[in-house]
Amino acid sequence: LQTILPDIQLNLRRGIAELGWGHPDPALLPAADLARAAELAIRRDGWRALAYGAEQGPGPLIELLRVWLGQREGALPAAEQILVTGGVSQALDLLCTLLARPGDVVLVESPVYHLALRIFGDHGLELVPTPADAEGLRMDALADILPRLRAAGRQVCFLYTVPTFCNPTGASLASGRRSELARFALEHDLVVVEDDVYRDLWYDAPALPPLQSLAPAAVIRLGSFSKILAPGLRLGWLVAKPEIVQRCIGCGMLDSGGGVNHFTAHVVAAYLEMGLLAGHIDRLRASYRGRRDALLAGLAQYLPGDCRWQRPAGGFFAWIELPEGHDSARLLPAAEAAGVSYVPGTRFCARYGGERHLRLAFSLLSEGELATGAKRLGAVLAYSRLQKTEG
Amino acid sequence: LQTILPDIQLNLRRGIAELGWGHPDPALLPAADLARAAELAIRRDGWRALAYGAEQGPGPLIELLRVWLGQREGALPAAEQILVTGGVSQALDLLCTLLARPGDVVLVESPVYHLALRIFGDHGLELVPTPADAEGLRMDALADILPRLRAAGRQVCFLYTVPTFCNPTGASLASGRRSELARFALEHDLVVVEDDVYRDLWYDAPALPPLQSLAPAAVIRLGSFSKILAPGLRLGWLVAKPEIVQRCIGCGMLDSGGGVNHFTAHVVAAYLEMGLLAGHIDRLRASYRGRRDALLAGLAQYLPGDCRWQRPAGGFFAWIELPEGHDSARLLPAAEAAGVSYVPGTRFCARYGGERHLRLAFSLLSEGELATGAKRLGAVLAYSRLQKTEG
Repeated sequence: LQTILPDIQLNLRRGIAELGWGHPDPALLPAADLARAAELAIRRDGWRALAYGAEQGPGPLIELLRVWLGQREGALPAAEQILVTGGVSQALDLLCTLLARPGDVVLVESPVYHLALRIFGDHGLELVPTPADAEGLRMDALADILPRLRAAGRQVCFLYTVPTFCNPTGASLASGRRSELARFALEHDLVVVEDDVYRDLWYDAPALPPLQSLAPAAVIRLGSFSKILAPGLRLGWLVAKPEIVQRCIGCGMLDSGGGVNHFTAHVVAAYLEMGLLAGHIDRLRASYRGRRDALLAGLAQYLPGDCRWQRPAGGFFAWIELPEGHDSARLLPAAEAAGVSYVPGTRFCARYGGERHLRLAFSLLSEGELATGAKRLGAVLAYSRLQKTEG
Repeated sequence: LQTILPDIQLNLRRGIAELGWGHPDPALLPAADLARAAELAIRRDGWRALAYGAEQGPGPLIELLRVWLGQREGALPAAEQILVTGGVSQALDLLCTLLARPGDVVLVESPVYHLALRIFGDHGLELVPTPADAEGLRMDALADILPRLRAAGRQVCFLYTVPTFCNPTGASLASGRRSELARFALEHDLVVVEDDVYRDLWYDAPALPPLQSLAPAAVIRLGSFSKILAPGLRLGWLVAKPEIVQRCIGCGMLDSGGGVNHFTAHVVAAYLEMGLLAGHIDRLRASYRGRRDALLAGLAQYLPGDCRWQRPAGGFFAWIELPEGHDSARLLPAAEAAGVSYVPGTRFCARYGGERHLRLAFSLLSEGELATGAKRLGAVLAYSRLQKTEG
């Protein structure tokens, strides 16, 4: 079928090493196996895969998720702690509708996943950044900000954080800070939304236990099949205390339409039953590890010596700090003209900050393309430096 | 897999003729054809069915929808007027987030689809009922209510109506009133959300043209594959002026996750391309027509002579008015004890009304079961009458 409308979000420009897109390499999407899962789901479940689904998600998928999370994380959540979602985006949207009201404050790690910020904005929430550093969210900042907001009479609906292989920084909340944040949240009755989509994509050592495991009563944890299986499925899960899950299950949208994405949920349940996910994640990890290493090698080889970055131990991203005087947003046109793209750091920061940072994704491109991208970025930065010196 | 959690919403109780559920008969869900469509979608589209989808929905599905709507309704909408949705429930939720703020008034036809009312409630909207009669929304009531609300300084976000084969009444907005409402909406700058999910399920004569065709600038029309294909797909569409579609496309949730339900959208696009939908709807129409007729025959035979109902010309429902002194909610336990269930009328009315009404669905049960249900309802009403006379 001929159409001028796009089918997918990804839009690659010829001649540009696209390090901006935090999308998976299409070659890593297991189309053939998902076709088999779809066939199995419909053949076996028949009309049950096509009727209005249970609000919580299909019971069989919830049971499979329990077992999966138990195996991966060592603790089996109770069935009443799980809700099947349409991925983190839909889950965040639902939480904003049910747990927040326009004018509420949402505390957001800064820098953090930029498109979550846009979801919060659509709900009329005020974004208050809480700075993070190489060890994740800064507890001193949180301990300063929250009481001041509450003293000023502000309603704080929740804190949003990506404590494991953060988008965009790749950083993880350090072990001590995890305990501190868990204690703080419980003591201060602060709901924490833990965006945990990169947990399985570790490249050096397994991720630290979820923040939620340290404060189950305070934390709503969001998982997704987008990074470990396929984003177009629009399927994920939420783990929270039963009261939160019940509030979601009882909402009008799920009462009306049934569980989100019921048909796809049956397909994914079949995929899990076929026992394919663990092996697929192993392959993803090997592939992404190689890409990460290729990017890091390229950065070390080609970037000016006064650029700084951390080695991301998991996830999709590297976060580069440019030397004083650079502005990553202003540099972007020159970079794209030189054949490399990225996302400027300001996009990930509520209110302020990020001007000297940029995010590079190593999930989409091959090792060779990543090296090419690093080389071009290095050249652009060197040229920009030269201009500044001459100017 | 053994589980105690439900897979689907439908929960049939032994011995009860379940006329409460507005769900399709499972036998009418085309599982085998959808299995073929899923296979075709993945085989042909491969990773494109699994990547982050375009925010508007997959271009190929939008083109197919344009052609489909053009063939069925005689007017081809422009591509920029269409958004693929996760069904009416998700579309309503999105519109509440983007077009309304808590405290706004939503005008709702009364009686109307009860679960839409719950979605509006989750968004903190105030429901103001606008009465409908056998010819649909009463324009005299609307012309009285809207100016008074605005004079009182209230923000009215939109009017929600089901003008074609309404849930729960089966009534359609009469032709003259359609023109009047279209003119009124344009003159008063009132956004109208037209829930149009039953359009194709007519049993006597094709439905009147959509309200939207008379006032394209004022009306947001919601369609769905839930009634004409399968509700578990969670897929539908929205037709509106391009500015509204752009506001939806530009929201954070779709920017973040890509189009809702991208994988399923590819499956449904394949189903449409296989050319199966028109024939399937013909079969649904024949089947539901027979059920409607069986229910109406049963009602005529068994219900006391002072019960009243309209002949539904389409959709899933009949709306019964009981004689003075009856209360359908209070009667329900006795009805279920006698082996028949329904939804009490108050559920469909914001604020007031519906006490003497009840909704019967003829979509789920066989003709024989519908006749049995009508017989049991008649017996319960006769018994209740006897008690009242004696009491």
